[in-house]
Amino acid sequence: MSNDLSSFLFSTPEMTRVFSAEEQLRAMMQFEWALSSALESHGLAEVGSKAVVAELLDASFVDVERLMREARDDGNVAISFVKQLASAVKGRDERAERGIHLGATSQDVLDTALVLQMRDGVKLLESAIAMLDAALVKQVLAHRETMMTGRTWLQPGPPTTLGLKLAGVLAALRRHRGRLDVATRRAMVLQFGGAVGTLAVLGDDGGRVSAELARVLGLGESTLPWHAQRDCLVEMVEVLANLTGSLAKLARDVALLMQAETGEASEGGCQNRGGSSTIPNKHNPVACAAVIAAHNRMPGLVVTMLHAMPQEHERGLGLWQAEWETVPEAFRLTAAALGNAIGIVEGLEVDADRMRVNFNALLGVSMAEAVSVALAPKIGRSAAHELLRNATKRATEQKSHLGSVLKGMIEVTGNLSAEEIDRLLDPRAYLGSTQQFIARVLGDSDAGG
Amino acid sequence: MSNDLSSFLFSTPEMTRVFSAEEQLRAMMQFEWALSSALESHGLAEVGSKAVVAELLDASFVDVERLMREARDDGNVAISFVKQLASAVKGRDERAERGIHLGATSQDVLDTALVLQMRDGVKLLESAIAMLDAALVKQVLAHRETMMTGRTWLQPGPPTTLGLKLAGVLAALRRHRGRLDVATRRAMVLQFGGAVGTLAVLGDDGGRVSAELARVLGLGESTLPWHAQRDCLVEMVEVLANLTGSLAKLARDVALLMQAETGEASEGGCQNRGGSSTIPNKHNPVACAAVIAAHNRMPGLVVTMLHAMPQEHERGLGLWQAEWETVPEAFRLTAAALGNAIGIVEGLEVDADRMRVNFNALLGVSMAEAVSVALAPKIGRSAAHELLRNATKRATEQKSHLGSVLKGMIEVTGNLSAEEIDRLLDPRAYLGSTQQFIARVLGDSDAGG
Amino acid sequence: MSNDLSSFLFSTPEMTRVFSAEEQLRAMMQFEWALSSALESHGLAEVGSKAVVAELLDASFVDVERLMREARDDGNVAISFVKQLASAVKGRDERAERGIHLGATSQDVLDTALVLQMRDGVKLLESAIAMLDAALVKQVLAHRETMMTGRTWLQPGPPTTLGLKLAGVLAALRRHRGRLDVATRRAMVLQFGGAVGTLAVLGDDGGRVSAELARVLGLGESTLPWHAQRDCLVEMVEVLANLTGSLAKLARDVALLMQAETGEASEGGCQNRGGSSTIPNKHNPVACAAVIAAHNRMPGLVVTMLHAMPQEHERGLGLWQAEWETVPEAFRLTAAALGNAIGIVEGLEVDADRMRVNFNALLGVSMAEAVSVALAPKIGRSAAHELLRNATKRATEQKSHLGSVLKGMIEVTGNLSAEEIDRLLDPRAYLGSTQQFIARVLGDSDAGG
Amino acid sequence: MSNDLSSFLFSTPEMTRVFSAEEQLRAMMQFEWALSSALESHGLAEVGSKAVVAELLDASFVDVERLMREARDDGNVAISFVKQLASAVKGRDERAERGIHLGATSQDVLDTALVLQMRDGVKLLESAIAMLDAALVKQVLAHRETMMTGRTWLQPGPPTTLGLKLAGVLAALRRHRGRLDVATRRAMVLQFGGAVGTLAVLGDDGGRVSAELARVLGLGESTLPWHAQRDCLVEMVEVLANLTGSLAKLARDVALLMQAETGEASEGGCQNRGGSSTIPNKHNPVACAAVIAAHNRMPGLVVTMLHAMPQEHERGLGLWQAEWETVPEAFRLTAAALGNAIGIVEGLEVDADRMRVNFNALLGVSMAEAVSVALAPKIGRSAAHELLRNATKRATEQKSHLGSVLKGMIEVTGNLSAEEIDRLLDPRAYLGSTQQFIARVLGDSDAGG
Repeated sequence: MSNDLSSFLFSTPEMTRVFSAEEQLRAMMQFEWALSSALESHGLAEVGSKAVVAELLDASFVDVERLMREARDDGNVAISFVKQLASAVKGRDERAERGIHLGATSQDVLDTALVLQMRDGVKLLESAIAMLDAALVKQVLAHRETMMTGRTWLQPGPPTTLGLKLAGVLAALRRHRGRLDVATRRAMVLQFGGAVGTLAVLGDDGGRVSAELARVLGLGESTLPWHAQRDCLVEMVEVLANLTGSLAKLARDVALLMQAETGEASEGGCQNRGGSSTIPNKHNPVACAAVIAAHNRMPGLVVTMLHAMPQEHERGLGLWQAEWETVPEAFRLTAAALGNAIGIVEGLEVDADRMRVNFNALLGVSMAEAVSVALAPKIGRSAAHELLRNATKRATEQKSHLGSVLKGMIEVTGNLSAEEIDRLLDPRAYLGSTQQFIARVLGDSDAGG
Repeated sequence: MSNDLSSFLFSTPEMTRVFSAEEQLRAMMQFEWALSSALESHGLAEVGSKAVVAELLDASFVDVERLMREARDDGNVAISFVKQLASAVKGRDERAERGIHLGATSQDVLDTALVLQMRDGVKLLESAIAMLDAALVKQVLAHRETMMTGRTWLQPGPPTTLGLKLAGVLAALRRHRGRLDVATRRAMVLQFGGAVGTLAVLGDDGGRVSAELARVLGLGESTLPWHAQRDCLVEMVEVLANLTGSLAKLARDVALLMQAETGEASEGGCQNRGGSSTIPNKHNPVACAAVIAAHNRMPGLVVTMLHAMPQEHERGLGLWQAEWETVPEAFRLTAAALGNAIGIVEGLEVDADRMRVNFNALLGVSMAEAVSVALAPKIGRSAAHELLRNATKRATEQKSHLGSVLKGMIEVTGNLSAEEIDRLLDPRAYLGSTQQFIARVLGDSDAGG
Repeated sequence: MSNDLSSFLFSTPEMTRVFSAEEQLRAMMQFEWALSSALESHGLAEVGSKAVVAELLDASFVDVERLMREARDDGNVAISFVKQLASAVKGRDERAERGIHLGATSQDVLDTALVLQMRDGVKLLESAIAMLDAALVKQVLAHRETMMTGRTWLQPGPPTTLGLKLAGVLAALRRHRGRLDVATRRAMVLQFGGAVGTLAVLGDDGGRVSAELARVLGLGESTLPWHAQRDCLVEMVEVLANLTGSLAKLARDVALLMQAETGEASEGGCQNRGGSSTIPNKHNPVACAAVIAAHNRMPGLVVTMLHAMPQEHERGLGLWQAEWETVPEAFRLTAAALGNAIGIVEGLEVDADRMRVNFNALLGVSMAEAVSVALAPKIGRSAAHELLRNATKRATEQKSHLGSVLKGMIEVTGNLSAEEIDRLLDPRAYLGSTQQFIARVLGDSDAGG
Repeated sequence: MSNDLSSFLFSTPEMTRVFSAEEQLRAMMQFEWALSSALESHGLAEVGSKAVVAELLDASFVDVERLMREARDDGNVAISFVKQLASAVKGRDERAERGIHLGATSQDVLDTALVLQMRDGVKLLESAIAMLDAALVKQVLAHRETMMTGRTWLQPGPPTTLGLKLAGVLAALRRHRGRLDVATRRAMVLQFGGAVGTLAVLGDDGGRVSAELARVLGLGESTLPWHAQRDCLVEMVEVLANLTGSLAKLARDVALLMQAETGEASEGGCQNRGGSSTIPNKHNPVACAAVIAAHNRMPGLVVTMLHAMPQEHERGLGLWQAEWETVPEAFRLTAAALGNAIGIVEGLEVDADRMRVNFNALLGVSMAEAVSVALAPKIGRSAAHELLRNATKRATEQKSHLGSVLKGMIEVTGNLSAEEIDRLLDPRAYLGSTQQFIARVLGDSDAGG
C-alpha cells in the first residue's frame, strides 16, 4: 500500500520512479562506479576495481533498513551506503575495497546522484514540454480566428481570439524551455571535492580524476566544488516554479471559461472525468484543479531553496539537508502540472457558438472603445470617452444594442453614418494585430521576450 | 523499500504512521461509520447499517490500486472509496448500502478524516512538547548559575548563564504549547455540509445528524461547514511553523556553541553519532542540523496554506487539493524537529570550564559596560563611554586585562579604587535579574508573554 | 511628492501614520521617557529627569539626516537617537542626562517602540473588523433567503443563499478577531533586558524598574526579555495573513459573481469607480483587486518572519533587522484589505433576479442530487446515481428541463409522481440547514470552529 | 522627514531614486512621449504632437495628490496620469491631445515604465557586481595561499585557503551575472497591446507603431503583449533572490569568522562602525547583518511574484497589482546587499596568524583523514578509519598532538616512519587541487557550473 494517496495529483509514475529510493541508490552507485573507474585509470585504485563495482550497480546489496537506522546517527545515508558498498566489494576482491569512495565525501555522492536523477527528470520534462508545445500549436492554428470576448479584471472587453489567448501560453512555454535548457546545462555538473572541497586526498591527481569522473558520468565539471554554493540547484527549482506558474495561468483561464454561466470551453477527457460522489451531473475541471494545486505548492519549495543558500563555510549545517526532498518535489509537481496541462490542451472542447453568443449578449457595449477612438479626432478625446460612457450606460439600462443607442444620438450621427457605426461595432473588424502576433509566435521557436 | 531515504530526518515513525495511507483510509472509515450511526439513530438509515459498516472499519476492503486509478478521473480518492465501501456494504446487507455517505460530499469525508489524523498527530506533538519541557526544566535548573559569555551580533558581550539562555527557549515553548492548544480546539471540528454546505439531502434533519456525528467522532461542531473557509487549518500549520522556529533557534545556538573554537556545549548522543564518511574524527551536530533543516522547510508550507485560502464559492478549485500533502508534511517535520530537540537538550554536554576560559580570554573587555555605567554619574555618560572605548581598545591591542589598563588610567583611578574596579569587572556580580527571570519562567507553566 | 504611488492600494492613511518615521521616533521617546520615570521612581535617575525628558516627547529634536547617516555605521537608528536625546537632555539639565537609556540596549527601545506602534495599529484593525462585522451581519440578514446557485469546482451545484455564503465569511472573521485578540495580548509586552537580556546594569533593581516601566507604558511584562525569542511577533504577522486570506476569499467570490456572464452581485461604490483608461464602459472590481493584491503579498511577509526566527544567542545578526519593515508592512496591507473589504460588503449590489435566472438556466440539472437521493431507497444508491446521470445528460443535450426528462422516464415515474418530481426539483425546498447555520453564526459572537 | 528609518539598511540612495515616484512618472512620460513619436511617424497623431509631449517629459505637470485620490477609484495611477497629461497637452495644442495614449491601455504604460526603471536598476546592479567581482579577485589573489581550517557542519576539518573560500563566492557571482544578463535581455521588452492585447485601436498599424515605439525607447519587442504572462518579471526577481543568497552565504561566513573565539577575519570599515548604544567596546558586523537581513526578505518577494502568475484572461484581477511594490523592493534589497557585500570584501581584515593558531589548536586532529588514507592501502580502509578514530580520540583526551599519539602507536609506526607521519600531518601539503581550482575561477570570466 502506497503511503501517499495524493500522488495521483502531484506526480507522474515516471517522475516518481526517477526520484525513488531505488533510483537514488542506483545513482549513488553510478557515482561510486565511475569514481572507481577514474581512480583505476590513474593508478589510484587496483586494476579490476571498476569491474568489481560494476557488478553492484543495481544497488541490490544495500540493506535499506540498516541504511535508515545508521543514517539517524550519521546525518545522511551516504555513510552507511559507502560502508555497505565497501563490505560488498571486499567480499569480492579485498584490494578493490581500498579505492572505494577514495577522495570523495558524503556530499559528493549525494549531490552527484541528485544531479544524475535531475538529468533523467529533465528529460521527462522536456518531452512533456514538447508534447504541450505541439498541442498548443495545434489549438492555436485551429482557433486563430475563433473570436471570443477579451476579458480584463474578469470583466468583458473588446474581442480577441482563442488562438491569441493560447499563443500567449505558447510563447511563455518556449521561454521556459529556454530557461530550463540553460539551467540544466549549468546544473549538470559533477560534485567532487572531498571533505572540504580541496580534493586533498588525491594530492596532485585531483584535477585529472575529477575530469575523468565527469567524463564517465557524462556530466560537466564545475570550476570548483559547489558544496556550499547552491545557486545552480536554486535556479533549477526557480525555473520549474516559473514554468508551473504559466501552466496555472492556462488552467485558471480554462476553468473560468468552463463555468456554466460562461461555457465557452472546457477540459475534455474521458467520459467519466470530474464526477462527484454525490452530484450525478457534475463535470469538474479535474485537470485544471491539478495544475493549480501543483503550482500553488511550488513557491513554498523555492522559499526553502532560497533560504537554504547561506550554507556555512565549506559544507553547511542543516540547510543542505533542507534541499533533499525539496528538489525532487519540484520535479514531481512540475511533471504532474505538465501532464495535466497536456490533457487540458489536447482535450480542449471549444464552444465557438457560445463564445459568439456571450459576446453578443454584451449588446455591443464592449465595442465602445472602437467608437470612442473613431469619434475622438472629431469631437476630442475626452468628449468621445464621455459620450460613449453615456451611450453604454443607456444600452445596458435599456437592454438595447449599443448600435441602436448610438444611431439615436445626434452627437454621433452628426459624425458617423449608420454603416460606419455598424462597421465599428463589428468585432471581427476589431482584432488589430491578432493574426500578426499569432504568426510571430508560431514562427518563432524561441518565442522569446 | 521505502520511497524516501530522507524520512529519518523529516519525520518520526509514529507521525509517519498517523499520516499514512492506511490511517487516512481508516479515518475515512471512521467518518462513514459514524455517519451510518448518526443516520441510523435518526431513522435515516436502516437499522443495522452501523453494525455492517463497523465490520469494515479497518478499510482492508479497499482496492488501493483501483482507488488511485479512479482518483485520476474523479479528482480525489473519496469517490472511489465510497463506491468501494458501498459495494462492500451491499455485499453484506443490501438495505444498509442506502445510507452510505448519505448527505455527505467527498470533502466532508476527506476533511473530517484529516481532522481525525491531526488529532492523533497533536497528541504525539503534545507528548513531545512535554518531554522537551521537562528536559529544558532540568537543564535550566542544572545550569541556572553556569556563567557564560553573552553574545550579541555573534560578538561577545557581558555575561549571562546557560540557564537563562535555555529559560528563554522554555518560555517560548510554553507559549507555543498554549497556541497549539487553542488552535487544536478550534480545528477539531467536524466537516459535514454535503455538496454545497447546506446539508440539503437531509432536509430538516441536518442539524441533528450533524450533532450526533460530531458526538460519535468526539469532535466539536463548526457553526457552519468550512469547505471553503480554511482558516483553522492555516492556523494549525502556522502554529507548528512558529514552534519549529523556536526549536531552530535552540539548535542554531547549540551548533554555534559546539564549534571547536568555542567548545562550550555540544549535542551529546550515542558514541557513533555525527561521524563522517571520510574524516575519522568528526563529531557533527546531527540533531541540530535536523532541527534546522526541518524548520527551513516549514515556512514554505505556511505559504502554500495561506495562498490556498481564497477557495472559490462553496468549494474551490485546486487550492483545497494543495493542502492535502501540506498539512501532513507540517506535522511530520514538527515531530522530527521536536524529537531532535529533545535529543539535543537531554544529551546536552556542557563544558563550564571552557565557558569560563572563553570569557576570561576576552580580557575583561566585555565587562566594559559595567565600568562605564559606574563612571557615568561621576564624569558624565558620554565621557565614560569614550573613556571605556579607549581603555578596551588599549586592552585589546596590548593584550592586557582591562583591569590593569583601567588601574593605569588616571581618569579612572581618580574615581574608582582598585577594589571597585575588580568588583565591577567580576562577571558573577554582573548578572542582574538573571535568577529572577529564571525563577519566573520555572514558576510559570504558561511562561506567556 | 510621496515616494510610493501604490500606497493607495496597500495601506490606509491612518495605518501609514501609525508606522511613519515620526510615530516610530515618538514611540521611542515614549520608551525613553517611561524609562526615566521608572528610574527616577527608584532613585536611579536624578529627580526631575522625567520632567526634562517629557519636554522632548514629540521627538522634534531629532536630526533625521544625522540619524540615517550614523545608522549606516551603527547598524540601527537607536544609537544615534540616544546620543541626540542625551545631548538634548544635557542641554537642559546636565544631571538628567545620566539616567538616559540607563540599563537599556538599542533593541529594547526599538522593540518596545514597535510594540507601541502595533498597539495603535491593532486598534485601527479592531475598529475595521467591527465595521466589517456589522456590514456582514446586515447583508447576511438581508440575504439570508436570497437563493443562488451553489458552486463547487467553479461548476454549478444545488442551491444555497447569499446569506449563507456571507455567513461563512462572518464566522471566519470572528475567529480571526479572537486570534488577533489573543495574539495582541501576548505581544503587548515590554522589551527591556539590556545588552544581553540580564538587566545587569541595574543590579538588583532590574525587576522593579522593569515592572514600573511596563506599568507606565501600559504594557505587560514578559517573563524574560525576548530579544532573540520572536514567536509573539511572528504570531502577530501570521494572524494578520490568515485574516487577509479570508478577505481574499470574499473578494474572489464577489469578483466571480461580478463577471458579466454571471452578473449576480458586484462591488458598488461611487459612480466613477473602476473605470478604464481606454474602455469607456468598464466597471472594474477595484476593491476586490485591492484585497486580492494585499493578501497575495502577506504570505511572503510570514516567510520572512518565520525564517528570521533562529536569531543567534542573546541577540542575533541580521535576522532581527529583517523584521523591521516586515511587521509594519503586514499592518498596512491588512488595513488596506479590511478597508476594501468593508467597501465591498457595504456597497454590495445584489441582483437576486439574475441569481434565479442563472439557476433556472441550468434546467434543473443541478437539482439531480435531490432526485437521486429520493430514488435511492427505492432502486438502490448506484442505480439512482446512474439514472440521474443519464437524465441530466439528456436534459443538457436536448436543452429541456430535467423535470420533463424525468417525467418521460419509466424507471422514474414508476417510483415518483409528477408532483413529487416537481417538489424534488424545487430549489427553495432544497436548502437543508441553511437557515439554521445562519442563525448559529448570527447568534454566536465568537462564531468559533 | 523620510517615512522609513530602515532605508539605510535596505536600499542604496541610487536605487531608491530609480524606483521613486518621480522616476516612475518620468518613465511613464517616456512611454507616452515615445508613443506620440511612433504615432506621429505613422500619421496617427498630428504633426507636432511629439514635440508638445516632449515639453512635459519631466512630469512636473502631474498633480500627485489628485493622482493618488483618483487612483483609489481607478485602481491604478495611469488613468489619472493620462487624463492630466491629456489636459496639459490640450492646453498647449488641442490637436495633439488626440494622439495621447492612443492604442495603449493603463497596463501598457505602467508595465513599460517598470521595464524602463528596471533597466536603470540593472545598470546599477551590474556596476555593483563588477565592483564586487574586482574586490573578490583582489582578495582571492591576496589570499590564495592563506591557509585556514576548512569547516563542515560548523566543525573543523582539513585545511583550505581563504582564497579558495572566496573563489567559490566569485564563481557563483559570475554565474549570477550571466543569469542577470539573460534575464535582463528577456525582460527589456516593450509592453504594448491595448485593452486586451490585440492593439485593435490601431487597426493594421499595430505592428509598425509597436516596432517604432520599441525602437524609440531602446527596448526589444515581445512576440506578443505580456499583460497576463509575467514569467519574465518573475525570472528577474528570482535571479535577484538567487544572487542575494550567495551574498548572504558570504556574509554568514565572514560573521562566523569574526566571532571573538574564532577571530580569523572581520569586516573592516571605518573606525566607528558597529558600535553599541550600551557596550563601549563592541565591534559589530554591521555590513554582514545588512546582507543577511536583505536576503532574508527576498524569498518572500519571489513567493509573491510566483503566486501572482495565474493572472486571469487578457489582464488579471489583483495579482498584477501585487507585483507593483514587489519588483522595486527586490531591486532595492539587492542593491543594498551588493553594496554591503562590496564593503565586506574590500575592507576584509584577515588575521592569518590566528588562522594558523586555530588550526594548530586542533592538535592535528583535523589531519586525521590524510593519515587514514595513507594507511588504508596497507591495513585496509575500515581498519585505518578505526585506528585514526581511536588516535584522534586519544589526542583530544590527552590534549597531545595527533603526531605524538600516532608515533606511539605500533600499528602506525609499523607502516609509517616519523617523517612520513609529519609530512602527512602538514596542512600545507594537504591542499590538493586548491590552487588549480582558484586558477580556474580566476581564468574564467563566466566561472560557470
